[in-house]
Parts: sequence; C-alpha cells; structure tokens
Amino acid sequence: MSTNMQFKGYALIDPSKWTDLQVREFKPKNFQPDDVEIAITHCGVCGSDVHTLTQGWGESKLPLVVGHEIVGTVTRVGENVKDFKPGDRAGVGAQRGSCMSCRACKDGYENYCPNGIETYNSEYPDGVVAQGGYSTGIRAHQQFVFPIPDEIESRDVASMLCAGLTVYSPLKTHGCGPGKKVGIMGIGGLGHYAILWAKAMGAEVHALTHDQGKIDDIKKMGADHVINTEKKDFWKDYPQTLDILLSTRDVHGEKMPLGDWLSMLYVHGRFITVGLPDTDDPLPGIHAMKFAANGCMIGGSKIGSKQDCLEMLELARSKKIKPWIEEMPMKKAGTALQNVKDNKVRYRYVLTQDLV
Amino acid sequence: MSTNMQFKGYALIDPSKWTDLQVREFKPKNFQPDDVEIAITHCGVCGSDVHTLTQGWGESKLPLVVGHEIVGTVTRVGENVKDFKPGDRAGVGAQRGSCMSCRACKDGYENYCPNGIETYNSEYPDGVVAQGGYSTGIRAHQQFVFPIPDEIESRDVASMLCAGLTVYSPLKTHGCGPGKKVGIMGIGGLGHYAILWAKAMGAEVHALTHDQGKIDDIKKMGADHVINTEKKDFWKDYPQTLDILLSTRDVHGEKMPLGDWLSMLYVHGRFITVGLPDTDDPLPGIHAMKFAANGCMIGGSKIGSKQDCLEMLELARSKKIKPWIEEMPMKKAGTALQNVKDNKVRYRYVLTQDLV
Repeated sequence: MSTNMQFKGYALIDPSKWTDLQVREFKPKNFQPDDVEIAITHCGVCGSDVHTLTQGWGESKLPLVVGHEIVGTVTRVGENVKDFKPGDRAGVGAQRGSCMSCRACKDGYENYCPNGIETYNSEYPDGVVAQGGYSTGIRAHQQFVFPIPDEIESRDVASMLCAGLTVYSPLKTHGCGPGKKVGIMGIGGLGHYAILWAKAMGAEVHALTHDQGKIDDIKKMGADHVINTEKKDFWKDYPQTLDILLSTRDVHGEKMPLGDWLSMLYVHGRFITVGLPDTDDPLPGIHAMKFAANGCMIGGSKIGSKQDCLEMLELARSKKIKPWIEEMPMKKAGTALQNVKDNKVRYRYVLTQDLV
Repeated sequence: MSTNMQFKGYALIDPSKWTDLQVREFKPKNFQPDDVEIAITHCGVCGSDVHTLTQGWGESKLPLVVGHEIVGTVTRVGENVKDFKPGDRAGVGAQRGSCMSCRACKDGYENYCPNGIETYNSEYPDGVVAQGGYSTGIRAHQQFVFPIPDEIESRDVASMLCAGLTVYSPLKTHGCGPGKKVGIMGIGGLGHYAILWAKAMGAEVHALTHDQGKIDDIKKMGADHVINTEKKDFWKDYPQTLDILLSTRDVHGEKMPLGDWLSMLYVHGRFITVGLPDTDDPLPGIHAMKFAANGCMIGGSKIGSKQDCLEMLELARSKKIKPWIEEMPMKKAGTALQNVKDNKVRYRYVLTQDLV
C-alpha cells in the first residue's frame, strides 16, 4: 500500500520572525504497522504553538511546523490498524506516540509515558523530526489517532483534541460532576471548553475572569457564576467553596496570589493548572500552612489519554456541544498566532487547509 | 457537678528561655454542656511545641502551656456528653473545638473548620486562652475527645493523638492500602508512625532518610525499602514509582529539590507535606511542567477528624501497633524539647504527670 501524500507545511524558519511561517516540504515519520496517515483538513491554533514558536519553552528545532489540533481524512493505515480505514475522518492531538510498554502506557495513561512523542518539535528514535498540523498530512501511531463521530463537524472537533481534552481529562480525574462546584480560571480557548464540559458533566460552574468584556459570552457558555478577579481579595467571598479550581493561565509570576486562591477550595479541593507558562515562570512558592488549612492540593495534568478523548467526544456528540471558534485559511496562521498571543481570540482559531 | 481540679502547667514565660518552663496556674475554659474534663497523666512532645515556644510560627500568647498529645482520666462531663463518664481514659490531640455548624464540621471534617480552636495558643470566643497538656488538666468539646481502647497503654496512645493522627489521616485520604507504593520522607516522630500505619494498611513502604544511623530502626518498623536521600539524584532510581510521598520535614528551604522529587510519583501521585515549617519557610516554587509530567499534585493535611482518629486507634488496637517512645517526667520537658529541636529523639517523647 502506498500513498501519494506530499508532506509540506507552514514552517518556522527564523524565530525572530515567529509569525512569518514559510511553506516547506518535510520528511514524514517512517510508516510503520501501527501507523495511520491522515490528509489534514483542519488544524486548531493552540497557545503551545505560540510558546514553541517564540522559543518560550526553549529553542525549537528548525524548520518546524507546529499545530496539534488536527483533523482530516485517513489516507493509509498500517497492517496492525483495525479501527481506521482510508476515507474515515480522524484526528490527532498533542501527542503522536509513546513507548506502549511502560507502566503508564499499560495502565491507559499513555499521555504520561516518560518517552511520549509530542506531535511536533520532538524526535522519533530514528531521528525523524515530528512536524505538526499546519501542513498537508501527518502519520501517527493508532493509539494517538481518534475517530470522529459523524455528528461532530471537523471544524468543531479540531480544537477539542488538545484544548478540549486538556481540560476534560483533569475535570474527569478530579471528580467533576453533579453536586460539585468547579471554578474555571482564565476563559480563553481551554477555559471556554472547561465551562462547556463542566456544565455538561453536571457541575455548578464558577468562571473566574479579569476581562469583564467576556461576561456575556461566559454566561452564554453556561457558567452559573462569574467571579471578577479584578475585585480586591475576591477569594474572600468564596471561602472553602470549590471542589476543583482549574486554571488555564499560562502566565504565573511571583506575585500571583496562589496561596490566597487556595482558600477558595473546599476540604481536599484541588487547584489544577493546565496552563504551561514559559520555562522561567514557575508557580510561586506556597507555605505548607496554606495546604493545611483545607487539606488542599495543587497539581497539573497533561492532555489526556485515548480513553479520555473517546469519552469527551461522546459527551460532545450526545450533548451537541459546539466550541466557540473562528475559521481562517492556513496561510493566515501568522495572524491567528499573533491574536492568540495578544489574547484577542474568541475563543479558538481553526485553520483550514489551503496547501492542497 | 463540680470538680476539684487545680489547673496548672509548665508554662513559657520568656521566649528567650524557651526550654525553661515554669509552673503556673491557669484559668481553664468555662465548662459547657458539651465539655469533657480530663486529669492528664501523659502528654507527648510534638515539633509543634518547639515551633510555638521558639516563636517560629509567630509570637505566642504568654504565659503559655504547650502540649497536644494528651491522655488522662475523665473527671467531669457536661450534660450533653453521652460517650464519656468520670473514670474513663480519654485523650485530646491538637484541636479542642470548632464551630460545629459550618460545611466542613457537618461533613465530618471538623479538623478543617475555619474557626477551629487549637489545643493551645488559641483563644475561645470569651477570651479564655487555650492552654495545653504539659499540665494537670484540660477541658475540651466532646467531639475532640477520643476514647482510648483498653488494649492500648496510655504511654503508647498519647503521641498517636497528634503525631499518629497527622499521618494516618492523609494516608487514608490518599488511598494508602494494598497494591500502593508509599514513600515516607523524614523518619522522626511523625515519620515513624507513618511507616507503622502504612505497613499495617497493606502498602509497600519506602522510607526516605538522610540519616543512615536510623536504617536498622526503620527496618524494624517494617519499611520494605530504605532510600538514602544523601545519594546524589536519588530520585532518578525511582521514576514514576510512588502513589503517595508523605513528607514530615518541617524545614523546607528554596533549594529543596521538590520538583525532582515529584518525578518519583506515579500518575496522579501525591506529595503530601504534613510538616509545618516556620512561617518564613515556604515550599519552593514549582514549574507547572513538573506537575504535567505525571499529573501529580502537592498538598497538605491537618491532623485528622474524630472519625479518622477512631479508625486509627482501632488499627493500633487490632494490629497491636506500638510507637517507639521514651518516657520522661513532665518537669524534664525542657530537655525533651531541646532534643526534639536537635533531632535527637528516638522517636517521640512522652511526658508523665508529676504536678499532682
């Protein structure tokens, strides 16, 4: 079985011009028996793309095609692949491979495999550089390829595969559901999904934002309450209230009053950050007494497993959940990226294929 | 019903001489219908006593009697008290009151009540200062008084009521049990209990210590493995291994490699600190990427609920668990305190009554 795919994408050439992506051909991964090849039709624009292109997470490989919210049509499957066939719609998120043999992989936590291969800016053992979805096509291990339910449009599903999954997984892990009070801090691409999912999962949702211009949107998304984080000591109005406080902020800073925010958590509540700031921007240090006050925890999460993704897609299908997106042709990626960096996106850009 | 109790104890008078405690009479709390009065026979010596006496947690009230691992004989009960009668053995830990009406109290998390009253160095609403257990007697709300099983000696049970409970509660909360790998960091008073409980609960126990002189003791306590934290990059030998890493350290410091320690946690593993350093010694700041690697969390815990305590005492009774203690007369509290501060205790001091 062969493929005629010509692999090319909008690539970073010069980090000093990080929005000026240039079309380049690239070598795809060597096709293996567990691989699925996809002709890309849509790719979402993620904050990770900005951090990588601006070198905020360290020096990237060059040239580099980013994009890890990928949807398209299967063009080829390896001999071990049973769940996909050419012509199927399928997607890939932020991860495209793992060792498949460690404890985490065996337990269905392949997203935490210490040897996971990220969708772009990582390298396969044979040296091939993983290139992302602002491109014509991708090959990925079948474990990291998701079938798309017929009822969900490709334009809608693309950004679910990173933004959506990144918030769905911790909401599920930490018990979001009926009777739970969930705070969502930072209402951008990830945060808007978190509101949509948490409501669909049956929780009472508190959206926390400093941007009063988003309040109407937030209410339309279904949040039960909006907390204005510009209000001085806003946390004092919500002592021991939230079971989960999910933060999508990707800027932290020493002065972030994390210790005070923790006072909003109910007993054994969790502050989970899914935002990943630049490498020089850790969470502020917290005194153990802040944790002792309510037995709370802070932690993180990393995208989600295939099982998480299948559940999320079923939730979206069954509850007819649509994200708030704007479409653009892929050649306008630079504009979309700049708007993401400038926090002007409402609430996710999805690039459509224009290279084929 | 009246009592002849004369309330006096070994009190801090001058913080510059924090081990030089002086016998002073004190006013007990006003006796109320939910109160139990206890004539103290034993009181453990806790690291909290040192932090309080040395003013490491802020300026203390003066004069102040510390001690919150209290066992004795009931001398008087209020009209609402059904579970205790004069002559019973009973104990009090680090908390002696709470509001009994907030969500936490109603849910059985009275240890997290925002208006909890600590056993010493706190104040009742009527202004009476709570004085601790290096003394003749104590009055406490019945919710914070624990019945002592006949099979457990008073000398053994005293330190269970803070040190033991403080580690039992998070072990239970975070799922310690068969099939779980639990790390215990810092093998002092709390840590030695954590080994005893975690083994009794069925977990595989890794004890982490920098003190090679304790290894024989640690093995006798039942730990399955000892990890030498003096070894460079010791965490690299245990990638994604532990489900819980319970730290009893009460000194943190900016250079503590917490982010590296987190790499020892398995997916969704928890680093729980029960040590409470001085107020100027927070946990170091951690980058969100460290949490993302395994979806782990860090958090804290605060003593335990009455339900936790009853379960712990039943575990100790049924499994015949004895702590490693040294007894001293109460007048030698200063020596015991200095040895705790100097980390010379093996593994808990229990003071015996000498004031009556």
